[in-house]
Amino acid sequence: MSQNIDAALTLTDAAQDAGGPEGATLAVARLADRARAASRVLARADRNWKDRALLAIAASLDANRKAVIKANAKDIEAGRANGTTEALLDRLRLNDARVDALIAALEELAGLPDPVGTVLRGQTLPNGLRLRQVHVPMGVIGAIYEARPNVTVDIAGLALKSGNAVLLRGGSAAAHSNVALLELIRDALESVGLPADAVASVDPWGRDGADAMMGARGKIDVLIPRGGRELIQRVVTTASVPVIETGEGNVHIYLDESADTAMAVPILLNAKTQRPSVCNTVETLLLNAKAAAAPEVLAALAKAGVRLHVDARAKALAGGIPTIDAVEADWDTEYMDLDLAVAVVDDLDGAIKHIRAHSTGHTEAILTNNLAHAERFIAEVDSAAVIVNASTRFTDGGQLGLGAEVGISTQKMHARGPMGLRELTTTKWIVQGDGHVRS
Amino acid sequence: MSQNIDAALTLTDAAQDAGGPEGATLAVARLADRARAASRVLARADRNWKDRALLAIAASLDANRKAVIKANAKDIEAGRANGTTEALLDRLRLNDARVDALIAALEELAGLPDPVGTVLRGQTLPNGLRLRQVHVPMGVIGAIYEARPNVTVDIAGLALKSGNAVLLRGGSAAAHSNVALLELIRDALESVGLPADAVASVDPWGRDGADAMMGARGKIDVLIPRGGRELIQRVVTTASVPVIETGEGNVHIYLDESADTAMAVPILLNAKTQRPSVCNTVETLLLNAKAAAAPEVLAALAKAGVRLHVDARAKALAGGIPTIDAVEADWDTEYMDLDLAVAVVDDLDGAIKHIRAHSTGHTEAILTNNLAHAERFIAEVDSAAVIVNASTRFTDGGQLGLGAEVGISTQKMHARGPMGLRELTTTKWIVQGDGHVRS
Repeated sequence: MSQNIDAALTLTDAAQDAGGPEGATLAVARLADRARAASRVLARADRNWKDRALLAIAASLDANRKAVIKANAKDIEAGRANGTTEALLDRLRLNDARVDALIAALEELAGLPDPVGTVLRGQTLPNGLRLRQVHVPMGVIGAIYEARPNVTVDIAGLALKSGNAVLLRGGSAAAHSNVALLELIRDALESVGLPADAVASVDPWGRDGADAMMGARGKIDVLIPRGGRELIQRVVTTASVPVIETGEGNVHIYLDESADTAMAVPILLNAKTQRPSVCNTVETLLLNAKAAAAPEVLAALAKAGVRLHVDARAKALAGGIPTIDAVEADWDTEYMDLDLAVAVVDDLDGAIKHIRAHSTGHTEAILTNNLAHAERFIAEVDSAAVIVNASTRFTDGGQLGLGAEVGISTQKMHARGPMGLRELTTTKWIVQGDGHVRS
Repeated sequence: MSQNIDAALTLTDAAQDAGGPEGATLAVARLADRARAASRVLARADRNWKDRALLAIAASLDANRKAVIKANAKDIEAGRANGTTEALLDRLRLNDARVDALIAALEELAGLPDPVGTVLRGQTLPNGLRLRQVHVPMGVIGAIYEARPNVTVDIAGLALKSGNAVLLRGGSAAAHSNVALLELIRDALESVGLPADAVASVDPWGRDGADAMMGARGKIDVLIPRGGRELIQRVVTTASVPVIETGEGNVHIYLDESADTAMAVPILLNAKTQRPSVCNTVETLLLNAKAAAAPEVLAALAKAGVRLHVDARAKALAGGIPTIDAVEADWDTEYMDLDLAVAVVDDLDGAIKHIRAHSTGHTEAILTNNLAHAERFIAEVDSAAVIVNASTRFTDGGQLGLGAEVGISTQKMHARGPMGLRELTTTKWIVQGDGHVRS
């Protein structure tokens, strides 16, 4: 297996096109056409066949782990030379443990049911016409992401399982890793008789390739950006291809007057400290001014190393605990770290008002023992997930029983909240008659 | 009731903004914020309340029909003065029969079940966490359409029934009609205690208003363009707000070798002549070279007044029937008239190949008595609706039992094919625990 970046250029004849935006547009169109042809084979491949492909990729990752890690080392080296931060280098890194995690994820994916062919609804009409609306693959999915080469394997696996071809734009920071992984995936597909073109990369065309993907309406059926806010906003505002927006979570927990302290403390600790860097972590705590549990909750968080960014009233509730004075920007900050904004609100209305002003529509939770308050919170908070008396960390495809997770959609169209394999499909109406005409 | 166009300007304080693109952006933002506030009331309104609003609009249309038709007459007069074609004037026209149709549609809508609150899926997890994914309104819908004032009532009714607020851009040709209808709808909402701001128009800001709607991501949840190809393509390629693409149907019927003549003739006549101007009408007939039914089908179509645009082989099959020689553009033309492109293909593969090259993904049908061919057609044709031995005219929300139809989506995201009320909703995960934390 070659780890040379030039190898990517030999993967497709599209590479022979001129460079620049026009070259990239031409190349993406050609890659997408080849992916479309491959997608037709995949759309008809049964689950067993697709699972064999996933297991072949897993086996090849295992067999070639040294080569993959070696290719990744070149990216790490280049990143370090470019002054990339240690945090970003960590996201970029592939080691034995991470390769093991990729293999385990592929094996788990192979064990999941196939969304393709599931009948969403169906009936026989009074005139005898037989109808069924069936889940079918989207066709060609585009994925634009950055710096995390594990996404290459992850998204390719999810696309394959759901019967889709995929075009990838993985970012230059992970170029060597992605070439190695792409070649391995394409070889594995061919080894089970599926077309290698089902998984292709536009990385040789760089940013122009990403731009061309965003404009390839009709060639690419849906675009999934994964990464930081800037990347996602660029895709969302630029692309003419339909986009599923994922990710940003400015997550709130409202501690109601009636909340039980024994319940509130462990939920807050779990929601903030279990894995601070992910999108379902709580970022703002709203304290009812009369919540008995408030001082103990704040003390427990501080003890766990959480930096509390408090408004004046929360500061008073915190007593002697060290705090940081909150500024306006804190209410809109997704820290993704051991930081938490804390505000005091007068009542449930105040909490809902704050959430409406600052939420990204990902996840909000209420801790309460008041049924009417729980019902109002559920009805009036407009987020992908609304949680009562549980940690916000449950907004996760695996936790909610959806199997593998594609991402967490914060938009309202097509998919909202954790996206599983089903969300990578569309539907088709199948109508069967015996000479039926409309009267 | 005032029919003065100036009345629209007094409907909202946003009209006090400056004109031009910036004024329109500001105005749309303010209208959308008011619509958002109204949408929160609507989202919690039960079905009975929403149905009372629909029936109040219907009653007001009946009571004010003279004023509405008079306002419409001004648009017709202005259109005629501008040299608008008779065909377009007909689309613009409101008369007693059309007002009756609007009233009937609103009453039918009131009789349909409410999609809001329907549980899509739900379960109790092994750890005792209770989950349900529930249909909830989108929030604020945007509709951009042209020249057909009945859409104003139609889309407002669909939005209300599904618990959404709606911003309308109805086009200057129908300005007087739309002002009259909008005022009537807003009055009816208030008469049942619902906020008038749930239905508002950006028409006072003209094209700038439409542009501002397209850019109002986060303010408007989904945009539905209804109209001609040019309008839809402009919205689809320009908008940063998620769009549902509707409409274009370059619909194919493939007449297989084994098709029964007695079945094929009435289906073709129905699919082409019952209502030629709509999107589920067949536009291209693909004839298997050996299809025994072919000559009789062509003769019947010609006799019904259909102009046949034929390739050389179809011309031979047509015998002495008058035909027009097809040019390349015919295969991509949505005639919406008594015209039909006719090509001969060697076999099913040829038909599928032609469809892949020219279909808009709306509806395709096969007429056959060969089971394997039917199965392959269903599996390999990638359209919103795939029909076996029935007319393509069945691709319609009403016909397929979805109740009222918002449009027919030709995209794969969110909704595909006929869109009913359910497709105007999104979902919300509701998670209930008793102190659950993630381990």
